[in-house]
Amino acid sequence: MLELILVGVGTGNPEHLTLQAVRELNAADLILIPRKGEDKTDLADLRRTICAQVLTNPAVRIVEFDMPRRDASAPDYRRGVDSWHDAIAEAWSDAIGRNLPTGGKAALLVWGDPALYDSSLRIAARLTPKPIVRSIPGIMSPNMLAAAHGVAMNEIGAPFLVTTGRQLRDHGWPQGANTVVVMLDGECSFRHLAPEGIVIYWGAYVGMPEQILLSGPLLQTGPRIAAARAAARAEHGWIMDIYLLRRAANKDDGEAVIP
Amino acid sequence: MLELILVGVGTGNPEHLTLQAVRELNAADLILIPRKGEDKTDLADLRRTICAQVLTNPAVRIVEFDMPRRDASAPDYRRGVDSWHDAIAEAWSDAIGRNLPTGGKAALLVWGDPALYDSSLRIAARLTPKPIVRSIPGIMSPNMLAAAHGVAMNEIGAPFLVTTGRQLRDHGWPQGANTVVVMLDGECSFRHLAPEGIVIYWGAYVGMPEQILLSGPLLQTGPRIAAARAAARAEHGWIMDIYLLRRAANKDDGEAVIP
Repeated sequence: MLELILVGVGTGNPEHLTLQAVRELNAADLILIPRKGEDKTDLADLRRTICAQVLTNPAVRIVEFDMPRRDASAPDYRRGVDSWHDAIAEAWSDAIGRNLPTGGKAALLVWGDPALYDSSLRIAARLTPKPIVRSIPGIMSPNMLAAAHGVAMNEIGAPFLVTTGRQLRDHGWPQGANTVVVMLDGECSFRHLAPEGIVIYWGAYVGMPEQILLSGPLLQTGPRIAAARAAARAEHGWIMDIYLLRRAANKDDGEAVIP
Repeated sequence: MLELILVGVGTGNPEHLTLQAVRELNAADLILIPRKGEDKTDLADLRRTICAQVLTNPAVRIVEFDMPRRDASAPDYRRGVDSWHDAIAEAWSDAIGRNLPTGGKAALLVWGDPALYDSSLRIAARLTPKPIVRSIPGIMSPNMLAAAHGVAMNEIGAPFLVTTGRQLRDHGWPQGANTVVVMLDGECSFRHLAPEGIVIYWGAYVGMPEQILLSGPLLQTGPRIAAARAAARAEHGWIMDIYLLRRAANKDDGEAVIP
């Protein structure tokens, strides 16, 4: 019997792990760590650090495997992602097959939470033979961002939308919410919004020693964020950032007004 | 100097606590536990259990205080909540003043995450004298729900909306997203939607021993959830539930289609 455990580990600080995540990692026979060669964005060092800090069971084996690269030149974005996921599933299967030929528990460290803008569940569904898959929730970057700024994600009784930079760029301010959390944005897509009346709470490397926070009216703060982001990316070689946008509620749209 | 630490503790299982939450609770001088008399919804027992399981520092004092009741008969809902928050701030101030007259670190255990549909940050802002307030993020019920059902919150590259039962009841399916997470719903507000084409993932007491999960097409599953919810509430005397609704994407609205 083969079990695959997707362990949400938070956003890079080993202290983000839950007691459940620590227990599950220590109960695994095998922990798989993806490696992208010289590319710093694989965060393999960070995964190794987390394992070193929380593993107390010497029987857990840590095995690294090479992550396939996505073909960014594929004309159809969705089909390109699909074949990439197939290739990752093959890499997982291969590493699991070689290290757990008669079954056992394999674990993967997933940034944030496996349920939020992460492909691990979908990749796991492609594995043959089919393992039992379990998800262990983790602290997500929206939570870290809100905690770092000391703000709530929602206004009282009001909804909020979680979306991607691409959606914001292509469709503008989404309908249905006055608070929007934007993830996976490689290009400061807030630049495409009319900034009047919008406040931004931005964070990079949130919860990690490198953390940078900026907040304020989008008009003045947007350009400062773009500059800080470019500088930090150049310095560290990679960046993970996220932001929350809030606009004044329109009293006519049935939503709560900021108290 | 007075510090107030709002510690997100997840949804009722002591294993949901992060290593950071455990460290912060053990570094507190005082942990405040709210008590609502005979009312089981105060979950005071659960807070005591969590403290008993994670506290290793005998110097931490645990103090219980009586929670003021909200005047549900107040004609203006928002004003009623406002005065209730004032009263809670007074109760916190009083308990802190009596137990930490010269300052120190007070901590409160917050269900889920202090940034999600929780009033602690807003109540803390009313305290006099003003303490330094810090938030420690916790696992939220949407994460627990998604993990329990083994599904992702978002479809690939698509947004999702987090909202309340009241919003869903008053405004119907929100614009801007094909996935909606509904919290704070005391009355199965999904009943007000046309159920065709909608799938529901529902959970009560998610992550706790009492956990109940139901999922499927809303048309058939909605009535089963309403019955299961009423029975569970009668049995336990309280209920905490949450659900995720997903509808088939309209190819014309620019959102990702379920693969």
